[in-house]
Amino acid sequence: MNHSTNDSDFNLQNPTLRAFIEVAPDSHFPIQNLPFGIFRTQETDARVGVRIGDYVLDLAALAEEGYFEDLGIDESVFYENFLNELIAQGKNQTRALRNRIGFLLQKGSDLEKKIEEKPELLYHISAVEMQLPVRIGDYTDFYSSIEHATNVGKMFRPDGEPLLPNWRHLPVGYHGRASSIVVSGTDIYRPKGQTKPNEQEPPIFGESKQLDFELEMAFIIGKDTNLGENITTEQADDYIFGLVLFNDWSARDIQKWEYVPLGPFLAKNFASSISAWVVTLDALEPFRTASPKQEPDILDYLKCEQNYSFDINLEVSIKTNIAVDETTICRTNFKYMYWNMAQQLAHHTVNGCNVRVGDMLASGTISGSEADSFGSMLELTWRGTKPLKMSDGTERKFIEDGDTVIMRGFGEYEGVRVGFGEVTGKILPAKK
Amino acid sequence: MNHSTNDSDFNLQNPTLRAFIEVAPDSHFPIQNLPFGIFRTQETDARVGVRIGDYVLDLAALAEEGYFEDLGIDESVFYENFLNELIAQGKNQTRALRNRIGFLLQKGSDLEKKIEEKPELLYHISAVEMQLPVRIGDYTDFYSSIEHATNVGKMFRPDGEPLLPNWRHLPVGYHGRASSIVVSGTDIYRPKGQTKPNEQEPPIFGESKQLDFELEMAFIIGKDTNLGENITTEQADDYIFGLVLFNDWSARDIQKWEYVPLGPFLAKNFASSISAWVVTLDALEPFRTASPKQEPDILDYLKCEQNYSFDINLEVSIKTNIAVDETTICRTNFKYMYWNMAQQLAHHTVNGCNVRVGDMLASGTISGSEADSFGSMLELTWRGTKPLKMSDGTERKFIEDGDTVIMRGFGEYEGVRVGFGEVTGKILPAKK
Repeated sequence: MNHSTNDSDFNLQNPTLRAFIEVAPDSHFPIQNLPFGIFRTQETDARVGVRIGDYVLDLAALAEEGYFEDLGIDESVFYENFLNELIAQGKNQTRALRNRIGFLLQKGSDLEKKIEEKPELLYHISAVEMQLPVRIGDYTDFYSSIEHATNVGKMFRPDGEPLLPNWRHLPVGYHGRASSIVVSGTDIYRPKGQTKPNEQEPPIFGESKQLDFELEMAFIIGKDTNLGENITTEQADDYIFGLVLFNDWSARDIQKWEYVPLGPFLAKNFASSISAWVVTLDALEPFRTASPKQEPDILDYLKCEQNYSFDINLEVSIKTNIAVDETTICRTNFKYMYWNMAQQLAHHTVNGCNVRVGDMLASGTISGSEADSFGSMLELTWRGTKPLKMSDGTERKFIEDGDTVIMRGFGEYEGVRVGFGEVTGKILPAKK
Repeated sequence: MNHSTNDSDFNLQNPTLRAFIEVAPDSHFPIQNLPFGIFRTQETDARVGVRIGDYVLDLAALAEEGYFEDLGIDESVFYENFLNELIAQGKNQTRALRNRIGFLLQKGSDLEKKIEEKPELLYHISAVEMQLPVRIGDYTDFYSSIEHATNVGKMFRPDGEPLLPNWRHLPVGYHGRASSIVVSGTDIYRPKGQTKPNEQEPPIFGESKQLDFELEMAFIIGKDTNLGENITTEQADDYIFGLVLFNDWSARDIQKWEYVPLGPFLAKNFASSISAWVVTLDALEPFRTASPKQEPDILDYLKCEQNYSFDINLEVSIKTNIAVDETTICRTNFKYMYWNMAQQLAHHTVNGCNVRVGDMLASGTISGSEADSFGSMLELTWRGTKPLKMSDGTERKFIEDGDTVIMRGFGEYEGVRVGFGEVTGKILPAKK
């Protein structure tokens, strides 16, 4: 077989490209996307897959057919439980792989004929179980939406300036918990903890009564650095493999009591949920756009010549236990972020902190300037003072047991949608 | 060969026990200690070792001789790059292993004869290179010394109460960086970053001018939990494998500007250093002691019936580039901590946050009440206002390039020292 077709001048961004597999017009997963994930089926252990429409291509099986043998990729990586080893092959390799898959998905390709013969190269999405796509070494959460930081500042520090003096000078961030990051669809137990509902009385212990989500996006590191090295904003592209949707579940009542002076801890580390498909930075190129103007002027190491914001539509819905329909409660856009990913990465490493393949850096809550574009219940209901109406007639100040929170995101150009699918999580009652 | 000698009623704590290997009276590593580590030599790849006096026992080689075959341990774990897989065998197994090694180290044992025949079962410490002992999934840093928190509060928030309202109600903690934790002896580059030396002027970028250490101890998780589960103070023993010395390097000028509202980030994540030998909780049993009285009363989930403080003497020295001798600048004790490890673990998991084998939880800076028992330069020099005299006649406000910081710790009972050896790190000039 000859699979070494020259696909080097093949352009996956071409909006007229179509796969031989039927893809619905509103699908997030046309041939221009091709995100990576880890799936398993009743027949197979965990392995690397690529999403196309409602189907998953089995890259391990495709590798066995020899489709990737000229790409310089160690093919054992397709049988791993996580994408880390694939990503660590290098961006040239994973880019060539994605291009090859796009090339093979064209009508009339070798692969189209092969799949008629061997339908097990492809699974319908309903036949697979998606797993956490990466083994996350370190997880960092930023706080990079000026609207969100301002809203939170007004509520948590009503007597001071909402934005602290450092906020416009550096992308404020902190380390979060990697062990409790779970894949979309995983149920989440309501956390218990210490809160202080009454200023005059001692703190109490019990279930959180102010459970919230935070709408975020997160990027995944694609290349290691050594301790002492830094990554400039110009180098950021080399170190960002791809992105996912990120729900940074938060217990506001626990947060308010615990967070001084070292930041949020138990209010956040009980769970974070991510979408299952890692959309490559390459697939998001059509959505690059300028970032908001930054005033006052920033230090040189944070300056970023390239456009590094991304025009990605985001929305959040709640489906209650009894509702037939979801209620959409937020519509916003990733492009609103004041600090972009290149700046976050430059800042994170400017002190020599090393990064490793699979590390996850989340944006912080993505809020817009309008009241229905805020990325958390805290802001949408203004700390519970303006409850939201659900489609079933009930109201929500925060998230209740049985509620499922669903986040979706996609970019669109010339009729092509490149999206993340969704990240969902249902809240179960606290464990006894 | 019969190695299945019944060693179940053998008591490693017995202070009269002696190994057939000569151990100096002031050694931290008598037969009563037997800590685990990962070493390599010119002849061998990384593998598990146990320290005795100035020697390292090669557990992979001992396993090949059949000494551990009845212990229910998968012997491939001795060839791993980290202790995680050994620890994950379970506390019954690692306890039986340590007991077996103690039994074998007695004078006149099988092993004594075997080593005459096969000296390669044992290496002198000067012939091995120690590696990071565990693969650290998540690292958490607490803030559990009331003296340290009070001192820092006075300096960082001079206008308020030094201790914030939550401090006596919960062990304040935050997540730190796992990727930049390095083993003792690793050189550390001075970090660069953003600081604001002058209130009236914008922040500047450059090398940290207030580089500091923090004297801490850290414990290593020995058993996984699932999301949603918690660990009570009564269960803590089952989940703590052992302890190390921990130097939480800190850049005070970066910290001061960045840390509100989400806590320290770049001021800490450029490096932390740990000692190479993991001393088991079992080996530290003789040093258990009562914790300081906690007032006001704490919530039930934090109450701890068992003695859970440990009487471990700690000291910090600096060796400058030109000095012949170290200068000891701090002497303190682990037992001073207001919040103990069982309370830290119960708090960390009370919200359902999961822990994994190899996770590291550090105490926070260990300061005593006397001015020479403070565990950081920040406190010892009171933010540089009271410089310390070095043995070479120079003075230190903070740590300078070329300085090596050395921390040591040990407990002592009936003439037996059980210690951690040391954690050292030399500061190199910032990378250009």
